[in-house]
Amino acid sequence: MQKPSNPQGTRDFGPEIMRKREYILDTIKAVYKKYGFEPIETPSLEKLETLEGKYGEEGDKLLYKIRSNKELAAEVTSEQAEGLKKLLPGAWIAGESKLGLRYDLTVPFARFVVQHRNDITFPFRRYQIQNVWRADRPQKGRFREFTQCDADCIGSNSLLHEADLIQIYNEVFVGLGLPNAVLKVNHRKFLEALVDELKIDFPVGKFTSTLDKLDKIGEDGVIKELTAYGIDEGKCKQLFAIIDNAELTTENLAVFAKAFNNNPIAQNAIDDLAKVLTFLGDNKLDIRVELDLSLARGLDYYTGCIFEAIVPDSGMGSVSGGGRYDDLTGVFGLKDVSGVGISFGIDRIYEIIEAAELWPDNLHTNQSILLCHFDEASLVYAVQLASRLRKDGLQAIVFPDLKRINKQFDFANKIGVKYALVVGDTEMSTGNLTVKNLIKGEQQTLSYNEALAYLKN
Amino acid sequence: MQKPSNPQGTRDFGPEIMRKREYILDTIKAVYKKYGFEPIETPSLEKLETLEGKYGEEGDKLLYKIRSNKELAAEVTSEQAEGLKKLLPGAWIAGESKLGLRYDLTVPFARFVVQHRNDITFPFRRYQIQNVWRADRPQKGRFREFTQCDADCIGSNSLLHEADLIQIYNEVFVGLGLPNAVLKVNHRKFLEALVDELKIDFPVGKFTSTLDKLDKIGEDGVIKELTAYGIDEGKCKQLFAIIDNAELTTENLAVFAKAFNNNPIAQNAIDDLAKVLTFLGDNKLDIRVELDLSLARGLDYYTGCIFEAIVPDSGMGSVSGGGRYDDLTGVFGLKDVSGVGISFGIDRIYEIIEAAELWPDNLHTNQSILLCHFDEASLVYAVQLASRLRKDGLQAIVFPDLKRINKQFDFANKIGVKYALVVGDTEMSTGNLTVKNLIKGEQQTLSYNEALAYLKN
Repeated sequence: MQKPSNPQGTRDFGPEIMRKREYILDTIKAVYKKYGFEPIETPSLEKLETLEGKYGEEGDKLLYKIRSNKELAAEVTSEQAEGLKKLLPGAWIAGESKLGLRYDLTVPFARFVVQHRNDITFPFRRYQIQNVWRADRPQKGRFREFTQCDADCIGSNSLLHEADLIQIYNEVFVGLGLPNAVLKVNHRKFLEALVDELKIDFPVGKFTSTLDKLDKIGEDGVIKELTAYGIDEGKCKQLFAIIDNAELTTENLAVFAKAFNNNPIAQNAIDDLAKVLTFLGDNKLDIRVELDLSLARGLDYYTGCIFEAIVPDSGMGSVSGGGRYDDLTGVFGLKDVSGVGISFGIDRIYEIIEAAELWPDNLHTNQSILLCHFDEASLVYAVQLASRLRKDGLQAIVFPDLKRINKQFDFANKIGVKYALVVGDTEMSTGNLTVKNLIKGEQQTLSYNEALAYLKN
Repeated sequence: MQKPSNPQGTRDFGPEIMRKREYILDTIKAVYKKYGFEPIETPSLEKLETLEGKYGEEGDKLLYKIRSNKELAAEVTSEQAEGLKKLLPGAWIAGESKLGLRYDLTVPFARFVVQHRNDITFPFRRYQIQNVWRADRPQKGRFREFTQCDADCIGSNSLLHEADLIQIYNEVFVGLGLPNAVLKVNHRKFLEALVDELKIDFPVGKFTSTLDKLDKIGEDGVIKELTAYGIDEGKCKQLFAIIDNAELTTENLAVFAKAFNNNPIAQNAIDDLAKVLTFLGDNKLDIRVELDLSLARGLDYYTGCIFEAIVPDSGMGSVSGGGRYDDLTGVFGLKDVSGVGISFGIDRIYEIIEAAELWPDNLHTNQSILLCHFDEASLVYAVQLASRLRKDGLQAIVFPDLKRINKQFDFANKIGVKYALVVGDTEMSTGNLTVKNLIKGEQQTLSYNEALAYLKN
């Protein structure tokens, strides 16, 4: 007899975890909708040619691939083919393209946009909440199958999208009870300006990948690495004077402009961020939005604003990232389509809320009412009463078997319902209901309508 | 440049299709919840040993399988291994078990129940809405990736679950505007009784697989096939006198008992169905529930009541099936756990609602309001107005670019919004809002609060 288990790096979600996950997803979805983002979905399986070469060498290695017998056979000698037939019997689909499981939602979205370009009205705001797969080494908090939660707007350069996304961050974190979250903002032009201004003569990418290590190796570590590349130590210190995180305000942008000696490349970034601030107006945000010039997040990808959200003191790294990219769809043949988007990592958010015990009370409770009974007749009465309660908008379960009432209450406690209705001879003859609050241990007898009002509350 | 496309047998869902799909899923989910079913999710990937051997030979062939390089290497000669390395570079996960994509939700549920048996309170009511994959030949209405929508109750023999499921069918079909749906009900004991009563001396399975063809080959065809097996033609006609579909009522159950000459095996079925009717009481159903003795639906699986729902005149076959099974979890080492469940096929339901144009009006409309403007100043004003509207509970989008107002209205029409707000100098100086109903082509000027009340309506 096989001992059942799920594959390493994957998870089963029971009812309580599902309630908590749905609470996070529903909160994010409601905010996305408020800003006019509409849902799309793409298949879990993509053609391998759609996925390969989009995630760098490391990413390619983490793709889950599926091939057909027929393809394999075409690539091998006839002797090898015989061996393969024995090796791979069964269901490799004949004649199908090479397939892979979706690695993220961004590349499938780019494919979607190009493939359906004639049916899409640009600018197109979509959100997409689906699972992705990575054949990574599983470890704490890193899974092989996990959920991404993306919103992107594609087909417009307007910086009002960046302002919308900042407000979305604010509403999501406030909605989830995490108003202490910090949104770090950077701009690619700042990174280019740093290289320009500091007269560093190596690629921006190399520079920023060092800068990206700030959290891990500290200021000293970064300076050590940069001086090893031949950058003057004085310049490095000058750099840190600039990247000291500051709140994103008009005043601080002026300080930055000065620190950059009014460098014209930096000025592009400052103009963009000033515009975002104009759109935000005096709309008060709860979360702190700060400029962080060390933020790079895959620079080759982003071309304008770059976002990363953290929850301080949570022990977790980034819980969301995003930014503007100018050529998402180019690889599929649609050039010059600017987009900007963000993605929430709901597993980390889940862990933070769980650790801080910030779940709303009702997530711990099964929202149904349990109907208990004493004998065959009251069981039948309870089943029909349950129908009536459901018609009146309540969730109801009837304890299905003829067992002692204490066993029925045990069941109620175990499945986490808050209220039980006890149906016996008295209730059947009077039509009244006996309502037991299982948390307080109190019991009261009410008319049907009184009970309905009480239970709906 | 590659022309992007999704794999054969898979689909992209844009916003309007998503709204329609979510309407179906939300309707079903709300009914499941009303009856106390709680959500679970299992991983898309299962160990191959969990899946294989559970779906028959045909099913096994349709499994999407994933293997690692390391496993393949272990099974071949070193020469073959060299060839394989060249054949399968990249991401085959080293050291991972053989994996397959989930083929249905029932087997993963059985694994879940056995694996988590110590954390589950029985009877356990779960619903599960997730995608499944079958490497089938794609054709109209048959996909390689599709969504199943299951509810099962496991760990109780009580027939109140059958009564609950019949009411769930009723509420789902009424909720989806399909009250003309027909729920066919059968019972495995009826099929056994037919074999017993008609003195047919071959297996029940063979008999019912012929009976199952009734829709395709008609009464004459079935009789022809049965007589070819050696059954007396008179007995066959006797059979059809019994299986003539009748509404499930106490009176008709009595007629059945008589038709079966009070056969004791048939009596088991009649007792069960009478009990279900008792639980239903005088709860009026909108859909027709009928006894259909030709209904088998994978007899080897079901042990009690068997369900199948159709929508007459839709040109579609079954849109949902289910029944009671007595040993779902036995294969994973947990014996004698009775369960009963149903599953909705949402793709067919989608097609039926689409063909009959039964979608609620609001699914055709983007629920957001579009804010239009004339210049830079009114654009900034519009962005901040949108923030205020969102705080007051509306969904809002600002047209992001500086374009002529007619272009903005074109955009509004294309994305399907119903209302546009026009912001110009007058609106900015008075604080009033100009609301345009794009469907009626009417325009009116309202105070902020008046507009809010109007737009929320």
